[in-house]
Amino acid sequence: MTKKRAAIIGYGNIGKYVMEAIEASPDFEIAGIVRRNASDKPREIAHREVVDDIKKLKDIDVAFLCTPTRSVEVQAKEILALGINTVDSYDIHGGIVDLRRELDKVAKANNSTAIVSAGWDPGSDSLVRALMEAIVPKGVTYTNFGPGMSMGHTVAVKAIKGVKAALSVTIPTGQGIHRRMVYVEIEPGFSYDAVAGAIKSDDYFAHDETHVIEVDNVNDYIDMGHGVNLVRKGVSGKTHNQLMDFNMRINNPALTAQVLVCVARAGFKQQPGAYTMIEIPVIDMIYGNKEELIRRLV
Amino acid sequence: MTKKRAAIIGYGNIGKYVMEAIEASPDFEIAGIVRRNASDKPREIAHREVVDDIKKLKDIDVAFLCTPTRSVEVQAKEILALGINTVDSYDIHGGIVDLRRELDKVAKANNSTAIVSAGWDPGSDSLVRALMEAIVPKGVTYTNFGPGMSMGHTVAVKAIKGVKAALSVTIPTGQGIHRRMVYVEIEPGFSYDAVAGAIKSDDYFAHDETHVIEVDNVNDYIDMGHGVNLVRKGVSGKTHNQLMDFNMRINNPALTAQVLVCVARAGFKQQPGAYTMIEIPVIDMIYGNKEELIRRLV
Repeated sequence: MTKKRAAIIGYGNIGKYVMEAIEASPDFEIAGIVRRNASDKPREIAHREVVDDIKKLKDIDVAFLCTPTRSVEVQAKEILALGINTVDSYDIHGGIVDLRRELDKVAKANNSTAIVSAGWDPGSDSLVRALMEAIVPKGVTYTNFGPGMSMGHTVAVKAIKGVKAALSVTIPTGQGIHRRMVYVEIEPGFSYDAVAGAIKSDDYFAHDETHVIEVDNVNDYIDMGHGVNLVRKGVSGKTHNQLMDFNMRINNPALTAQVLVCVARAGFKQQPGAYTMIEIPVIDMIYGNKEELIRRLV
Repeated sequence: MTKKRAAIIGYGNIGKYVMEAIEASPDFEIAGIVRRNASDKPREIAHREVVDDIKKLKDIDVAFLCTPTRSVEVQAKEILALGINTVDSYDIHGGIVDLRRELDKVAKANNSTAIVSAGWDPGSDSLVRALMEAIVPKGVTYTNFGPGMSMGHTVAVKAIKGVKAALSVTIPTGQGIHRRMVYVEIEPGFSYDAVAGAIKSDDYFAHDETHVIEVDNVNDYIDMGHGVNLVRKGVSGKTHNQLMDFNMRINNPALTAQVLVCVARAGFKQQPGAYTMIEIPVIDMIYGNKEELIRRLV
């Protein structure tokens, strides 16, 4: 079997875990890593090809976009236009339909595939939400996140004046309602009250119960564990009280990276175009012989 | 929108719930019911066309096979050969690959689709198992059934000499191990000890902890509620201790019927051939506009 040659675009938290997930996969190999400063090579990638442009790597089959969500569209279009598949974990829920539409055009024109918004939420959770709605068409689904670190909220806190370092943890309190626990180091010259007030009135926090806790060293509180509880109660046919839930307690970047590898595999089995995870057969995400997978999993 | 015209083949427990699920669906209508004795028309289907052969119904798009598992293959082949799609909830795990292979040939030759083994297990559980293995490729999945009535085990008990009526309830004790609670009415002239001994040594029960309880009226104990707990612990990439589980507490035939309606819908969106649920995009199972579904569910 020829392994698919992968380029990792961006070498932050997700990029590192994607490297591990590819190393653990039988059907992919790492062709190289693309980062802005190609001479920045930590010890664990000293033996890897690190470049500042994907065009400097040879025979790439798929690019793993491990850069910030807001840069996904531009990067994916450039890479798809080279006839190279892309996968990303674009996570702004309101922007997914537009991103998919844009990348679909470029992918179809260049005989490549783009799998968009493939992390755990959006991503594998979306697949479970869709399945729950399929088999229980009437009713309500709640997505309860955490406990776990929220990247978006943490970034929002860091932008507030007087905050030296921050960590925002999401705590589920049920029915899709969340409490925010914000751990901050405060800059000298700023008061706790002023900083806490600014955080609580920020749009990211104003609608949720928010607690601000001053700490000496935010790093002591950082843990990449996260979780989710998806719960649905509703009606199948005319029968009420159908109850179901899906729960995870996981290392967040490790799961995101593994999902990216799954959908990269599936991308080679789809027609040119852009897809979200709910548009792809799950069997295409798993390595192995089709009939053996059916025998074991169905 | 033209509704898809459905034939319900068999009017037992599943057939009745399929009728309800179709009535609750915006995109299907019931063209008729096929049963061996077409003159057997309970009040709730007095207004329906009931025939003894699907060929007597006009313009059928899809047939819902609600007959015993062992008759699925023969019936599906006959119907697929008419160019009509089929869906079934064939539930003998060891026979699924062969059934799919056989129906695939007939479906491809006649421009129809067959969705096989589409209940909740095999069926929607298979999809969750596949997703769990995709995103956590190393590790163990346990499927814990119940508490709920097991059709297969109940039939096995009824076949034992001296059993007048029976009900076998499956109780999960963890790690895929189950206890069997068997409620029996005993024929006059047979002793409890003889009957209980025969049940416990039957191959269906010999490997599990089995309790046999004599009751006056088995019907008083019958409840169509069932459940499952799918649990996986394993490794994503190189990161251990990834934990996830999926749980349901549901009316068993109502869920099976709703799953059949979902996959009937999806069957019209696949190329000719036979499929298990893990081979079909989940979005195809849900009624609605594609981009609106992506916006709401991803």
